Amino acid sequence: MSRIVTALHDGPEGAKGQVRDLRVRWALEEAGLTYQTRTFGFGEPRKGSDLADQPFGQVPAYAEGELRIFESGAILLHIAGQSEALLPRDPAQAARATSWLFAALNSVEPVTWQMVIMTKYVWGDRPWAADARAAALDFAQGRLRSVANWLGDRPWLEDRFTVGDLAMVSVLRSLPADYLAPHPELQAYVARGLARPAFQRALTAHLADFRHPEAA
Amino acid sequence: MSRIVTALHDGPEGAKGQVRDLRVRWALEEAGLTYQTRTFGFGEPRKGSDLADQPFGQVPAYAEGELRIFESGAILLHIAGQSEALLPRDPAQAARATSWLFAALNSVEPVTWQMVIMTKYVWGDRPWAADARAAALDFAQGRLRSVANWLGDRPWLEDRFTVGDLAMVSVLRSLPADYLAPHPELQAYVARGLARPAFQRALTAHLADFRHPEAA
Repeated sequence: MSRIVTALHDGPEGAKGQVRDLRVRWALEEAGLTYQTRTFGFGEPRKGSDLADQPFGQVPAYAEGELRIFESGAILLHIAGQSEALLPRDPAQAARATSWLFAALNSVEPVTWQMVIMTKYVWGDRPWAADARAAALDFAQGRLRSVANWLGDRPWLEDRFTVGDLAMVSVLRSLPADYLAPHPELQAYVARGLARPAFQRALTAHLADFRHPEAA
Repeated sequence: MSRIVTALHDGPEGAKGQVRDLRVRWALEEAGLTYQTRTFGFGEPRKGSDLADQPFGQVPAYAEGELRIFESGAILLHIAGQSEALLPRDPAQAARATSWLFAALNSVEPVTWQMVIMTKYVWGDRPWAADARAAALDFAQGRLRSVANWLGDRPWLEDRFTVGDLAMVSVLRSLPADYLAPHPELQAYVARGLARPAFQRALTAHLADFRHPEAA
């Protein structure tokens, strides 16, 4: 079965290591599934079937046989459904893993990474951007504290690594240091996730696809 | 099979019709599945199994037999898996429906509703909040335009109503009027979703659980 993931072959420095094809590559590596990439330039307009496959004109989109999936969360869940390495077979455990996947994307990412984007790129040059950022950071701490309290000194969110951890670590790893500074549990958790060989392989492949001269 | 959804029995006026148990109730109504509710007070602290069932101390949480699911997106997906009314049986169609569910929660909601929350409740009393809101609204229009362009004059995001529409309409319906004003396609789409008898039953039940004297 051929699997194709769309990614970027150029872009600003800030895009490297951040664009969400990385999450999909990580899941495929954890699951031991091979894939190919198809790359776009940063900001390259999409039309035709490319726009149908990703209506926001972003990456990643995913093709597998007749399936066309967009949104990294949906792709992660699809891949997880093919591998017990990401999703336990026990239905109750699978439900928890899926709950954490959505928690990462809909309860944590919007109040953290989304706010980083807004304060950095949307409000970046306004005189009040620093104030907005400080208030957003303060607000985000409530959600981050809930995750830290839940995690405590356990290695993963539930009894074992799942697609929920993959999503949560992916969200947390992109945050500036001051977001995680009050939460040593979360810092250790992120480090644990990023040390996984599957993540390292995914990151190497993600960076290798940036063919732009500035790419590492 | 008993199904239990947690909800609120009091809260500020702004919570009524907005708390996310409504999305879960809507899905259950579309699927023709019965459920019971267990309610909390607004801001009531959680501990023990309640905190385990919803680690952010929020509603909704969902119990069905041995399953415990949190995050409205995860609950919607679980319910959808039980009903062709929400998720087509064809795998390619199901993949598209799931993609739109994640798009609503991770591509549209963070740049729209999340920003409403931030500018209204987090930055509400700062002198620059109006500027922040205007910039956030402007930024959000890109994402909303992608959805509007995709939708065009079709009734639903794909060939038929799915859980993806349920999630997208749920996100869009909560936005202030100026978010949707430039997009008549989206206004008509939201109206179409809210006119569904299943949504109306869900809303009635959601509001009836507010026992607070101010409740309608």
